[in-house]
This record gives sequence, structure tokens and C-alpha cells, in this order.
Amino acid sequence: MSGDTAIATVCLSGTLEDKLAAAAAAGFDGVEIFENDLIASRRSPSEIRGLCAELGLTIDLYQPFRDFEAVPPDVLQANLRRARRKFDLMAELGADTVLVCSSVSPDAVDDDDLAAAQLRSLAELAGERGIRVAYEALAWGRYVNTYEHAWRIVRRADHPALGVCLDSFHILSRGSDPRAIRTIPGDKIFFLQLADAPLLDMDVLHWSRHHRLFPGQGAFDLAEFTGHVLAAGYRGPLSLEVFNDVFRQADPRPAAVDAMRSLLALRESVGALEVPAALRLDGHAFAELAVPGTVLADLGFTHVGTHRSKPVQLWQQGSARVLVNAAAEEGSISALGLACADPKRSARRAETLLAPVLPREHETDLAAVAAPDGTEIFFCGDDEWLRDFVPSGVSSAGMGITGIDHIALTQPFDHFDEATLFYRSVLGLPPEAVSEFAAPFGLVRSRAVGAQDVRLTLDSALVRRGEWAPGVPSPQHVAFACEDALAVARALRESGAPLLEIPSNYYDDLEARFDLPFAAELRENSVLYDRDSSGEFLHFCTELVGSRVFFEVVQRIGGYRGYGVVNTPVYMTAHRERRLSRA
Amino acid sequence: MSGDTAIATVCLSGTLEDKLAAAAAAGFDGVEIFENDLIASRRSPSEIRGLCAELGLTIDLYQPFRDFEAVPPDVLQANLRRARRKFDLMAELGADTVLVCSSVSPDAVDDDDLAAAQLRSLAELAGERGIRVAYEALAWGRYVNTYEHAWRIVRRADHPALGVCLDSFHILSRGSDPRAIRTIPGDKIFFLQLADAPLLDMDVLHWSRHHRLFPGQGAFDLAEFTGHVLAAGYRGPLSLEVFNDVFRQADPRPAAVDAMRSLLALRESVGALEVPAALRLDGHAFAELAVPGTVLADLGFTHVGTHRSKPVQLWQQGSARVLVNAAAEEGSISALGLACADPKRSARRAETLLAPVLPREHETDLAAVAAPDGTEIFFCGDDEWLRDFVPSGVSSAGMGITGIDHIALTQPFDHFDEATLFYRSVLGLPPEAVSEFAAPFGLVRSRAVGAQDVRLTLDSALVRRGEWAPGVPSPQHVAFACEDALAVARALRESGAPLLEIPSNYYDDLEARFDLPFAAELRENSVLYDRDSSGEFLHFCTELVGSRVFFEVVQRIGGYRGYGVVNTPVYMTAHRERRLSRA
Repeated sequence: MSGDTAIATVCLSGTLEDKLAAAAAAGFDGVEIFENDLIASRRSPSEIRGLCAELGLTIDLYQPFRDFEAVPPDVLQANLRRARRKFDLMAELGADTVLVCSSVSPDAVDDDDLAAAQLRSLAELAGERGIRVAYEALAWGRYVNTYEHAWRIVRRADHPALGVCLDSFHILSRGSDPRAIRTIPGDKIFFLQLADAPLLDMDVLHWSRHHRLFPGQGAFDLAEFTGHVLAAGYRGPLSLEVFNDVFRQADPRPAAVDAMRSLLALRESVGALEVPAALRLDGHAFAELAVPGTVLADLGFTHVGTHRSKPVQLWQQGSARVLVNAAAEEGSISALGLACADPKRSARRAETLLAPVLPREHETDLAAVAAPDGTEIFFCGDDEWLRDFVPSGVSSAGMGITGIDHIALTQPFDHFDEATLFYRSVLGLPPEAVSEFAAPFGLVRSRAVGAQDVRLTLDSALVRRGEWAPGVPSPQHVAFACEDALAVARALRESGAPLLEIPSNYYDDLEARFDLPFAAELRENSVLYDRDSSGEFLHFCTELVGSRVFFEVVQRIGGYRGYGVVNTPVYMTAHRERRLSRA
Repeated sequence: MSGDTAIATVCLSGTLEDKLAAAAAAGFDGVEIFENDLIASRRSPSEIRGLCAELGLTIDLYQPFRDFEAVPPDVLQANLRRARRKFDLMAELGADTVLVCSSVSPDAVDDDDLAAAQLRSLAELAGERGIRVAYEALAWGRYVNTYEHAWRIVRRADHPALGVCLDSFHILSRGSDPRAIRTIPGDKIFFLQLADAPLLDMDVLHWSRHHRLFPGQGAFDLAEFTGHVLAAGYRGPLSLEVFNDVFRQADPRPAAVDAMRSLLALRESVGALEVPAALRLDGHAFAELAVPGTVLADLGFTHVGTHRSKPVQLWQQGSARVLVNAAAEEGSISALGLACADPKRSARRAETLLAPVLPREHETDLAAVAAPDGTEIFFCGDDEWLRDFVPSGVSSAGMGITGIDHIALTQPFDHFDEATLFYRSVLGLPPEAVSEFAAPFGLVRSRAVGAQDVRLTLDSALVRRGEWAPGVPSPQHVAFACEDALAVARALRESGAPLLEIPSNYYDDLEARFDLPFAAELRENSVLYDRDSSGEFLHFCTELVGSRVFFEVVQRIGGYRGYGVVNTPVYMTAHRERRLSRA
């Protein structure tokens, strides 16, 4: 008896035993066992059956059986012989459903009647042993490559042990309309495989084998798709089948949690699971990091409070609050505070969606969870949390910084897509499109999550594994908002803040591209510039403060929605040069 | 005055200064300076000009200028304004040719007359300043995306300061016939950019931005292409323009050497450079590694000699010779000996093609060079090198191993494509197609080089950068040939050799797939099996011997040409399990 959630072993890294342990620990009810994982295992099928039973996992699918149908008689005989062996194995394994993919073999012919008749004979053999055959159209099947076509053949074969397997990738990657799924009787949908993917313009086989993602990480509408399948009356598990170069080599334990989070969020979105709803986040309450307080003073911040029990200072300017934690790792952004109406409810949602809840030492401690990169996320209701700080009594007008615009977090490569899903599902922060840019030491992939009040950017070096690139890991930063970047830059420069100098060549190019009345002022103050169709962006950076953090100050004019990514290589190069010259 | 060879700064990693230093050190005559590299540099254009002069580099091209032509009058005015600024910059830089790519702008219209007229006005402006405009059709240009079309527009514009830039990627990626290049007057071909690429079925822009390779590393026929351009009368530099995710983040110094090697080999192939010809390699003379001699004894090898001056033992069975070097790094394959008719000539070829020549301590030392992964390659004429060994006087019949079939070298990710080119150009070993397989801890990319007598396989983990995958770096191995793998396996097993046990599940699957008369013997002896259209392959492995080496014994039946890659994940899993169980 299968449960609500399953995962194919091919989604995860390691030996079959590693994969099963990770799936069970993440709370999956069942697994699809990929043939190659079993073949390489020292455990016999019945030992694997026992191990799964111990772990509380059902084996929902054995996969795949390929190139079966629409073949000449001698090939059919060899295929049936192979099938008998696999059915014996499945009996040992305790798996009652086998996936049969539509043929890609040169032996196959384009003959639906022949395909139906041969699948019927396979189903007859399977049915005698209590096994069900789930026939799936591969997007690159030789003749059968749409779910409608697979269903026509299954209907023609008309055998109780033969049904279809629907796979969201194979259907959505071809742009097939999934609405006709509703016309398939639910009890003839034997299995449902789910995968998301980014929209890529490439050969669909390559796309499928390397770039699948867990639901919510890519561009497909999995909620709508799954809704059609459930409306058709499908009652089997929602099962993940994701081939992904990164997940294949990442630690399977967090990958399985990431996978399960994707299914929980999907089940929530189709109304199959109740989760405390994501509440609107009202802004960045604070950023916590370990830098010298003097840097903040240079930027016009005031030391307004000291934590009652921890070595933490609160600095403020406008509504921008920075916690300087003397106990945190030097230079890192260790925590974010996000303002929300009901911190306990937000924390309950996060916990339901498998975010690791941080231990609270005191009853008054804030509700907090850990993001995939280890950054601590605190939920802050009103300004209650400020009571933990003894006010210094000092106040100051500041130098024009008004708040936090966004926070840029460098993601470990293995957790980039996981982070998108975490912020989207746990915190309700919608992701923007992925962009890539050429940094001086390799390509960087960047994705923003959030909207007006809370914005995060997630960056990851795309291929950084050489011995060459200096200064790994990459810097992170807090970007403050202001209303007049040129004035703030001028004031900070005068007060001796460690602002980063931008090369003159940048301004020569800027002046060649745009006819800006304030070009000379940009140059004079090392302020960078970008524009899009709806507005303009002025921004400048500090030098690196500590080993891997800097600050940025940004001014958004009109409806500019980006982050000045076009200028990132320029300041990255400047940071690297400064670092190398000091090293 | 430009020289024979140039490289675009975009090919290499680092700051502009890093790139220029690497290009000069590798012997390039000139560079194409990519605008973004200059913009991010603190040096002014005239300082860059001075630096290049010091390094002995000409600046052959400033690139690129985009989205210029076939636009409305107001856009043209802005573009000419931008061009004037860039021409000023080029004067400072001392660059006399600018690349103008065909427009991808939504402002552009499909009007060759307008494009020609506007390019003519640009050329007029350029000509006054002694600058040449090289117009290039991007493969994804909005209206102009073939070199024939670009040439038609240039001919129509008819201005001495306007010519075409030919880029092998833009031409060959679209499948254009390059023969018509011969109809373009050589003095109207202002520049030639060269890039190779693997054949990939994806959007050409993505293909170009991520997957270009240096000539000889991919699938394009660059010799034929370059031959057409030279036949047309082109006399400018052969210049590399390669966008590649790996090269962008790898150490620029070896990458520049790799790049220069690709041009030297290309110039050789079009008859523009004399290099001592690659001589046929007659076989594997030896493999050198650091393992306990007892392992070789267990495999039926005999200790037949001891080096006169080094801590090296010679072990032999059939024609397979293994040097056990007590001074080498434990477990690694440190050197290969390749039999050839004229070692000095092979070494001269290698040196001409920039292979690092290893120092010779004695006059009698063998000629040797270092491969990209550091493996030492020795050229061995006849059996002269054996005179360095004092014979032990012992001989033995052995246990059926007859020679070395191939050697599998694990490549550092950053050097995978470099290795292909090294073996192809320096040693004349043709590469086979790249294959990928799913190993238990991630995808592995594999490529064989060589033929009948000398075969190497190069493997590299495709995305291994996580913290998870245990046992990095991956094992390498020496594969011995035999004529009866089952008999040899049986004999070695009886003599107590540490052969790797293959799981029973593997044989269950094998028996389901094939009806083999010797299936039971394969199972009993843990021998793996594969077949292709022309033959069969039986092979088995030892356990890991030391930290990262094992031995394989293979039998080729008929014309089987592969390496049993389908079975690699099975023995890799077994190796990992054994290693983990011992750890």
C-alpha cells in the first residue's frame, strides 16, 4: 500500500543504501527504485525489501523497463524473457508496479495496434503475478512521445494490468496541454512522476537528463498539472523523478529534505495539505554580522543599544538596523531579521515545511530557522524584539541611509536551487528569473527572491572548482537604501568611510553609452549607474570589511526593479584587486 | 603590425593584467581586448598600451561594438556618438581594428541598403582616424546571421575602412558552407576569430557563450575552415575567441599554453608551421606507479630487474611491464612509457607544441614530457631503456596477462579538454567521442584517446564540488590485456589476488538482458561483460591497491572498441563500499 509521497532513487547521490536512508529520514512514504541502483548493490532484492520495510518505505515503482513494444516477433520473445526475469525480481523486491517507457529502439515500428497487442501480452504476464504495467511516453520516444498517444495505446490494449504513467517533465517540456489528463479515468493512471525544470532551449533528452528540478525550483506550473491529475481521480503517490547534475553529487540527506519540502509545498498548493499560510513580510528588521562597529559609525550609523545578555550591539540609521555580533564568524552575514505580523505562525509554517528550527535558549528568544546556507532567519513581530536591547540613549540624524534595500547571500553551489525553493515556500518570497554574469574569476549565477519590502539576492559561482580562483568563498553584502546616492556618497567620503574606488575606464564607457547630466558626479564619487525600461539605479560600495562582507548603498529611481548586476563584475574586480594588493 | 597568433582576453580568467601576462608568457603575438576587461581595469587605455608593449603584445582588435547598423536616424546619431568615444579610446590603446557585430537590437530593421549606408558612415569616421571596422555576422544576429550576408553588406557599403570579420563558430555552428569564403578578397577579410566546439543540440547563443573550445578540442574541422580563409588571401593573425565556462575560471597561465598549443597544431595542419611529424606510437612500453610489489606478484608478474640508480623495480608479464617506483606518490600512476621509433624526434615535437620537457639528470635518461595532469610521458625507443635495469635473472610463465590494453587517467576538471588536445596534438593520439555516465557519487565525463596500440581513457567528475562525495580524487587504473579473461580470473583468484567481488544483482540483470552460455562463469569469477555491434568485452578488476589505483584485466573479442563504460558504475560502487567499510 503506497503512501502520499515518493522519490525515485535516481534523484539522490550515493549507494542505494545511502539513498534509502536519506529518503526515510526526510519523511518519504515510498521510493521508486532505479534499476542501476539495485544492480550495483550488494544486497539482494529481498534484503532491499527488508531494509525498506525497516525504514518505513514502500517500493512504489521499479524502473524502468525500456524498448519493449512494437517490435518484430523474435525481439518480442527476448523482451518477454527479460520481463519474466524482472517480474521475478520485483516479486522478491515486493514492488507491484513497473514503469515501461515508450520505445526509442531502432527495432520499433510505427504501429499502434502492434504496440497495444504486445503491451497487452506483457500486461497478461504481469497480471498473473499481481504486477501492474505503467506505460509512459518519453518526450523523445521514437513514435510514442505524448501522453495522449500512450493513453490511446493503453486504451486499445484494454487490460486491467496496463495503465499509464504520467511524468510532468515529459508532458510540459513538449508544451503539451495537460488539460486532457482529466479525460483519463483515474484508475488507469497507474503512476505520477513529478519534476520541474528551467525553460531551456535545448535538445529535450539533454534537458531532461541534466536540468530537472524539484517542483517549485523551475518554471513549470506543477500545481496546475497536479490538479489535473488529481481531478482525473488519481490516488497514488506524488513521486519525484529528478535527474540533476548537482543533486546527483550532493549530500543526499539535505537533498532529500529539499525534495520533501517541494512536495509539501506542492500538496499545499493543490489543497491536499494544510500548512499555516505564508504571511506577508513587512521588511528587513535587521541584518546581523560581525564587523568592527567603527565601520558602521563611518557609514553614519549610531550605536543605539546593547543586548541584555549577548555580546551584540544594535546600530541604526533611518530604519536600517544592523546587529554587530562579536560572537559570530568574522565577516559573515550570520542572521536576518524579517518583520512579520505573527512570528509564531511564520515559524510554524517554516517548521511544517522542514526548515530546521533553531533552539531557543530563553522564552523571550525570537522564533528562528536556518536557511540552506546556514544563515539564521528570525521572525520579528512589531518592534518587540528591540526590548532585548538596553538603549544607549544616543541618537543622530545619520548621513542619508534610510533602510535596508536588499541582502546578497553567496550560496554554496550544491544549495542554489534548494535556496530558491526554501525562500519561495517557507517565506513566501517569489523568485525572479535566473541571470548569469561573467565575474573576473568565472561565471556567477544570480537569482533574486522577494519583492518591495524584503529582497534577497542569491549568488553562486557556476563552475568554481579550480585551484585558481582566489578569495573563495565570495563576499556577501548588505545593501542599504537611500534617496540621493550622490549626496550620501559625498557625505560618507568626506567623513572618511572606506568607499570603493571605481576605475575611470568605467565612466568613460558610461559616458559613451549614455548622455547623463550627472556623469561627472558619478565619476567623482565612484557611484555606479544602471537603467531599465522603468527607472534608474545609482549605487556604490564600501571596500571589503573583514574577509567576506561589504556594504552597498543604492538609490532606486522610478520603477527600477533590478540590482545593477551589469556593474557587479566592475566592483568584484576592484574588490579582488584590493584584496590581492593587501595579501 | 600584428603577428601570427592572437587570443581574446575573454578566453582567460582573472583581471586584464593576469590575462595579458598569461598570453605573453605562452608566446602569443597579440590580443583582442574585450571591452568589459578594460572597463574593470584601473589602468588607463594608454597604460594598457604600454603594458602590452612591454609584454611584446600587439592589440589586434578592440571588441565588440554592438547593435550599430540599420537603425532609425536618432539611434544612429547616438551610435555614432558612442563610436567616436570608442575610437578615441582605441587611439589611446593603439588598437586599429574594431569588431562590429551584426545587430541583435529591436531597433534594427531588415534593410541591407540602410545597413550598408550606416556602416559606410561608421567606416568614414573610422578611416579618418586610421581605424578599420571589421563587421561580423553573429549566428543569432537579428537579420544578418551568415557570413555571406555580412559580406554582401560590406561589398555594398564599399569603403576601404570596412571589411568582414570571420568567426569559425558563427559560421560552422549554423552549418554554413565555408567554401564561399574563398570568393571574398583576402584584403577585405579584416580579422579571423577561431573557436572549436562540441556538437550540441541547443540554442546557438547558449552553445556559443558556454561551450566553445580551442581548435582541436571539439568537433569542427578548423583546418579546412582556416584553409579556406588563407586561400582567400587573409594575412592577419589567427586569433582565438573562446567563451568557455571552465577556462573562464581556470588558472590563465596553463590555459594560455593550451590555447597556444591549439594554434600551433592548427598552423601545422594548414602547412603554416613546421613541426616534427607525430610518429606512430608502437605500444605501451611501461606504466610506472607506487604499489606494493606483492600485488604484482599476486597478479602473476615477475620481478625481472632493478634500476641501476633509482629505487625502481621492473615487473613483467607477457609484454606488460610495470615499474614500481618507491619514490613516487603512493598509489598514483606517475608515468607512462610509450614505445616509438625515434624518441628524440617525438620529444622535439612535444617541445615545439609546448609540452613541458622534464629535466634529464643523466645523458642516458629517457626523453620525457609532462601531461596536463602531471603524469610523466616517456618516449622509449626499442628496448634500449631496459639497459638501465639490472636483470634479476628470474623468469616465469605468468598467469595469462599478455600486455597493457589501456591506462585510465583521472583528469582534474579544469584540464579535461586541455588533455584531449595534448594527447591529440603532441602524441598524435586521436580522441573518440565524449561519453558521460552516472557514477554513484555524480556524473563522470569520459573520453578515450588513441587506437590499437596505445589507448588512454581520460575521466573527470563533471560537477564534483560538493562536500559530500567521499574519496576524492577518483581512482586511476592500468588495464592489462589477456586472451581468456575467465581463465585468468580463475587462476588469479586461486592464487589469492585481491580481485573485486561484483554483486549478484549485476549477473541477474546480465542474464535478463543476454542469453550467454558462459553466464554462470562470469558470475562465479566476478567478470563483467559488454558487447557492441562488432564484438564482446570481458573484464574484471582488483580491489583498490593503495589509495587511488587499481588494476583491470580485459579481453577483447572480435572488433569490440569500447572500455565497458556501462559497467563502470558497478565497480565504482564496489570500490567505494570497500573503501568506506575499511575507513
